[in-house]
Amino acid sequence: MTYLEFVYAADLAGVAVFATTGALAAQGKRLDILGVVVLGIVTALGGGTLRDITLNAHPVLWIGDTLYLWVAILSAVVAFVLSRYIQYPRRMLLILDALGLSLFAILGAQKAVALGMPDVVVVMMAVITGVAGGMIRDLLTGQVPLILQWNGEMYASCALVGALVYVVFSHVMTEPTRWLELSAMTIVFVFRMASIVAGLRLPEFI
Amino acid sequence: MTYLEFVYAADLAGVAVFATTGALAAQGKRLDILGVVVLGIVTALGGGTLRDITLNAHPVLWIGDTLYLWVAILSAVVAFVLSRYIQYPRRMLLILDALGLSLFAILGAQKAVALGMPDVVVVMMAVITGVAGGMIRDLLTGQVPLILQWNGEMYASCALVGALVYVVFSHVMTEPTRWLELSAMTIVFVFRMASIVAGLRLPEFI
Amino acid sequence: MTYLEFVYAADLAGVAVFATTGALAAQGKRLDILGVVVLGIVTALGGGTLRDITLNAHPVLWIGDTLYLWVAILSAVVAFVLSRYIQYPRRMLLILDALGLSLFAILGAQKAVALGMPDVVVVMMAVITGVAGGMIRDLLTGQVPLILQWNGEMYASCALVGALVYVVFSHVMTEPTRWLELSAMTIVFVFRMASIVAGLRLPEFI
Repeated sequence: MTYLEFVYAADLAGVAVFATTGALAAQGKRLDILGVVVLGIVTALGGGTLRDITLNAHPVLWIGDTLYLWVAILSAVVAFVLSRYIQYPRRMLLILDALGLSLFAILGAQKAVALGMPDVVVVMMAVITGVAGGMIRDLLTGQVPLILQWNGEMYASCALVGALVYVVFSHVMTEPTRWLELSAMTIVFVFRMASIVAGLRLPEFI
Repeated sequence: MTYLEFVYAADLAGVAVFATTGALAAQGKRLDILGVVVLGIVTALGGGTLRDITLNAHPVLWIGDTLYLWVAILSAVVAFVLSRYIQYPRRMLLILDALGLSLFAILGAQKAVALGMPDVVVVMMAVITGVAGGMIRDLLTGQVPLILQWNGEMYASCALVGALVYVVFSHVMTEPTRWLELSAMTIVFVFRMASIVAGLRLPEFI
Repeated sequence: MTYLEFVYAADLAGVAVFATTGALAAQGKRLDILGVVVLGIVTALGGGTLRDITLNAHPVLWIGDTLYLWVAILSAVVAFVLSRYIQYPRRMLLILDALGLSLFAILGAQKAVALGMPDVVVVMMAVITGVAGGMIRDLLTGQVPLILQWNGEMYASCALVGALVYVVFSHVMTEPTRWLELSAMTIVFVFRMASIVAGLRLPEFI
């Protein structure tokens, strides 16, 4: 498996995890299976769609490669069926979700760099790709988006920090390499895990 | 009246109905007339706008043909004025709304097919065109979108089933014809009416 | 300072004001600083982004000129820090906000005219540029958008009236000039101030 194949597989795994968390967010909202699939798709692909439309980078990722759409649909259906019989382990979901966030944020940054975007736009795109899907999910289920909130465990901050490291080092080095990508992803992941475990918080707005 | 003229007239009628339901959704929310017009426009044209932007099919339908915009604005104003004097017959609105859903979903699918989109994207676009406007209307009026919910009477499912039939038969036949379009629209309509009358429901997510 | 430099400076000032009101809307919602910055950015740049994407006018304003983004970010951070020590004077904010609305609405109309859009689309773009950011801010903080509401002090109406004047007179005159722009902005501003002071309201939808 080459590095590009590995990243592609990991990206699809991120879609599967995000779609699953989207579907599980429907619990207690009296949604039917189609509503659950819609929530799964929106959570998994909403961030990337918003990024591609804003950057005018057509075709949008799931139109150019429908495998993204299929993975999101299937993951949501599986979550719908399985959640009647088993309890999804919350701890495992948190870890997978942190992995998805790492991948989405840094791959979003990479896409913006490839399109020659300025640094601040690259960082914006990393955050949008990582968190916008979850924000739309929260809106659709009638909640103030968790990532805006003080007790959101610095979800967006982790994407932000990783993207900043990625941008800074891509200037230090002659060009962004796979090692920089992997390092930035690792930073997002470790930072997110640390903030969950240690309960790190940014200053609160009163 | 040719077939294309018939479809165009029916599409505008769908816009009028959706704008009316959008305006009536404002009842009890203390909106002024401009707010009501905004809700009408968003409900009637939100789905098509989202579809055209995602597909990169510019100009967006109501920019390319402003008659869509005028019909939405006038319908919302008429609904605002009339609703002070008469009670809109709920049953008639439901039937007209089902007609609008049928047209929007299948015309949305047709547009995606014309752009050479893969099947799963065609079905997505049918559902988006049919239901996204209503979802944005629900968000703006502070409600969990009805179409996601178990008691939403399978609104999105009807669009989905019609689009699936349309896609499958467009492969069986050499190319999608007007008869296929009309049949798929009829399927959406009949399915929607049946689900209202018989109280059909998809399995609920607990 | 040329007229174009003046308009550019004023536009950036509008971004700063809108970002500040967005950040202050976060008060009492328990957001952290990144959530506050997100709200500031969305409020200040959401309307222009939606306009540019709908018009297919890429690059989106803050991607083509990142100073817009920096001003929004810095204003939100300053609002976050300052609001711990001082009370923002509500009256001054209302006046600045009315100035921002005037600029955003008429500059939005001007952009649509420059792209050769039909009149009704020009007016739509003026309203979208002026109010969509505030609507997204309200959605994200879990409120029915104020501008849709009867007690919204005709926020959108002011943008609408100014845009109508701009469109009508741009046909009467051979081409829109800076004096027409300034006059239309003044109309939006005066109308907005009058509606706040005199408590003007449009008819309410019961």
